Amino acid sequence: MSQLFSQLQLLLGAAHVRQGSDESVWLSDKHRTYHGKVMAVVHPASTEEVAALVRVCAQHGAPLVVQGGNTGLMGAATPDDSGRSVLVRLDRMNRIRQLDTDNDTVTVEAGCILQNLQDAARQAGRLFPLSLGAEGSCTLGGNLGTNAGGTGVLRYGNTRELTLGLEVVTADGEIWNGLRGLRKDNTGYDLRDLFIGSEGTLGIITAATLKLFPLPKARSTALLAFDSLAQAVRFLSHARAGFGADLTAFELMSAACLALLREQFPEGPQPFATAAQPWFALLELSDNHSAEHAREAFERVLGEAFESDLLADALIAESLAQSEALWQLRENMSEAQAREGRNMKHDISLPISHIAEFVASTDALLQVHFPGVRNLTFGHLGDGNLHYNVAAPVGQSIAAHMANYAALSALVHRNTHAFGGSISAEHGIGQRKRELLAQVKSPVELELMRRIKQALDPRGLLNPGKVLP
Amino acid sequence: MSQLFSQLQLLLGAAHVRQGSDESVWLSDKHRTYHGKVMAVVHPASTEEVAALVRVCAQHGAPLVVQGGNTGLMGAATPDDSGRSVLVRLDRMNRIRQLDTDNDTVTVEAGCILQNLQDAARQAGRLFPLSLGAEGSCTLGGNLGTNAGGTGVLRYGNTRELTLGLEVVTADGEIWNGLRGLRKDNTGYDLRDLFIGSEGTLGIITAATLKLFPLPKARSTALLAFDSLAQAVRFLSHARAGFGADLTAFELMSAACLALLREQFPEGPQPFATAAQPWFALLELSDNHSAEHAREAFERVLGEAFESDLLADALIAESLAQSEALWQLRENMSEAQAREGRNMKHDISLPISHIAEFVASTDALLQVHFPGVRNLTFGHLGDGNLHYNVAAPVGQSIAAHMANYAALSALVHRNTHAFGGSISAEHGIGQRKRELLAQVKSPVELELMRRIKQALDPRGLLNPGKVLP
Repeated sequence: MSQLFSQLQLLLGAAHVRQGSDESVWLSDKHRTYHGKVMAVVHPASTEEVAALVRVCAQHGAPLVVQGGNTGLMGAATPDDSGRSVLVRLDRMNRIRQLDTDNDTVTVEAGCILQNLQDAARQAGRLFPLSLGAEGSCTLGGNLGTNAGGTGVLRYGNTRELTLGLEVVTADGEIWNGLRGLRKDNTGYDLRDLFIGSEGTLGIITAATLKLFPLPKARSTALLAFDSLAQAVRFLSHARAGFGADLTAFELMSAACLALLREQFPEGPQPFATAAQPWFALLELSDNHSAEHAREAFERVLGEAFESDLLADALIAESLAQSEALWQLRENMSEAQAREGRNMKHDISLPISHIAEFVASTDALLQVHFPGVRNLTFGHLGDGNLHYNVAAPVGQSIAAHMANYAALSALVHRNTHAFGGSISAEHGIGQRKRELLAQVKSPVELELMRRIKQALDPRGLLNPGKVLP
Repeated sequence: MSQLFSQLQLLLGAAHVRQGSDESVWLSDKHRTYHGKVMAVVHPASTEEVAALVRVCAQHGAPLVVQGGNTGLMGAATPDDSGRSVLVRLDRMNRIRQLDTDNDTVTVEAGCILQNLQDAARQAGRLFPLSLGAEGSCTLGGNLGTNAGGTGVLRYGNTRELTLGLEVVTADGEIWNGLRGLRKDNTGYDLRDLFIGSEGTLGIITAATLKLFPLPKARSTALLAFDSLAQAVRFLSHARAGFGADLTAFELMSAACLALLREQFPEGPQPFATAAQPWFALLELSDNHSAEHAREAFERVLGEAFESDLLADALIAESLAQSEALWQLRENMSEAQAREGRNMKHDISLPISHIAEFVASTDALLQVHFPGVRNLTFGHLGDGNLHYNVAAPVGQSIAAHMANYAALSALVHRNTHAFGGSISAEHGIGQRKRELLAQVKSPVELELMRRIKQALDPRGLLNPGKVLP
């Protein structure tokens, strides 16, 4: 057993320092695409323990990889296979330290599972609006590390916009206490936003002070049908003007997505089963007054949209059960794709004004180069964020399709970049898109990023091999 | 004439490179507290010219100070008195490069005056919501450099939250084109937010892509009276729940502020002239539907507040003219103070839950140490931002009062820090609060800031002597 392993055991207690082989579930990513080896998996109980273990690792030159719920898709939380790293799991640091309803803030440790935080806020009569598929197992630390998005961004912003303050252990093993519950604080450089989204490469986030919001009194949901993607974009602009900030979600799904849902979930809801429209969107409105008030706004804005030819059809949920059934469609999308077999996922974003043209152009290019592939395009249209997924042609094996992944993705990402878009809207870079970054970022931007990495982690011990090409 | 001066003339044209003595209006700050000397004032016309002049200055080791509308209060845009600096004015870079109504974004050069941008957005049927007293002369570059706040933060956020992308000239004279119009983009470190609020010390911001919003259909304004500051805080929580994001402004004013307004603007509006309440707030609601709809929400939420004893009295504007008269109160606050004579200004923020206690505690401490001083406390309560201003005791000369500035401010800032607040909510640090920063920031945070400065501006040529202690 190495000297470092013993020192870590002395520091954290033997029960909280394990061999990698004993906890191998954490050494592969969720989809088992990436695999690593480590010299130890550690479970510190406090910020002070994190700081102490960083100092001990630094003495030994051992890299540190911090991991949340291990639900990421880019391999950012999977260590390399050198076997030299220490994997830091914050599962014991999951406390809600303080919830302040007058200030509408909550201070929470990084290992807290997102859903537990949502529940705690709700019990206090408040909303913590970050919401995504993995919320039952992902942690706040992972959300902060990747600047997670999800379905509430249109109204409430990304994780970045929900965060007021951070507590971070630096690469030197020092503790930066930046847990401020302030809406305005212009006192020097914005360290907070530098750590958010840095995927564990600049520091270890151990806690955060986050914004809370009033719980809406009512929610209204509708599934809308559009004759074209351009029409959906025009409708969105109309809805933003008509609903203002009450417009909480606008989730796009193609007709192919709805068809796949019907096929894979025949027992599930079947709205617009015979509709001819190519595009659909799930719209959610929050209201601070009453369900009736929300319904009036819905009818007014949708009525105007019909009159102005901004909308082909609409299905308004008449009850909570109907609303949940409509949301179930969106929530089943990942599972429906998984049941059909693996496809190629692209988490991209575009200026909303270019989305229709981008989809038409990219769909057409794919048919030229990869005839027969099937687009399963959905996503958070209100944020310009598409999950531009591509399934195998009918009759082609998944394996044969996936063999084209690199070439097909290169085409999609090249076109995304050409339309002014981003190759990673909400999933981050990790190890998966690291080399791709060099193709879409200017040398000036990459150099600025490298200098910041060098300044904050000069020995390169924090999550090496991630983010930076 | 120095070699650098000639090179700059060659680069920008002789008409756009002037001696400091010819343009001395830019060498002092607005309040003429700080004064500097420079070897040249330059007016570049393009980002490429800014990059070229930075490279030339770097060759000569000449510091660069970039200046917007010169309306800042912290001396951040005033050069030092070495006479070695080049003052960069971006007044020729004031174009709106692109306005995209489908994407709800605008790309604008840093020298554009804020009001011109507001007007351009309005002409396109959109709202650019940043709004502050200096909007007729301050520039976007200055707003970005200081992360400006203002009266719309409660609803729309600070300048930081309104910004999607930046174009920056680095200390090496390279151009970083980060002008992305994307709501989601998780591709590496957040350089944007590092430059925003760095007061010209990390790079020169030359352009930005900013968010636009729908123009509200209606606005409603009311002046509210409260029996205590704690009651105003409780009302705010109620109003956030009842109005949601439609709550656009919540501007606090003490009874002393209203009395001062009556005295200095006897021809102005005189609401609550005989009221006994100690605190008042200007509330504004935006509505996406109609004036009638806004009025209904107003009556509902204020009615509930009266029933729950969250409010002592309310004056609802019945017309646009009445609404403007109420806003005039808030807008006249600075001028009313100036007419009375100089007082001590403190731009601070606090967790909203601690504000009432902070004000009681600080007011009391001031009376012990500086008997008779008069508090003129107002500010953006919805953001926890107080302008905690302190006027001379009745009968004391302004000069005698101002002689205590250092000691009195130290007390206010010490107490702000003790209550978890910030010594600069929206005005920044500049040269004025630079040394104060060392008292309120931990050594860890200061060290992180220094490393970032070293990484991005290793020769220390960008706005030296500002921000960092």
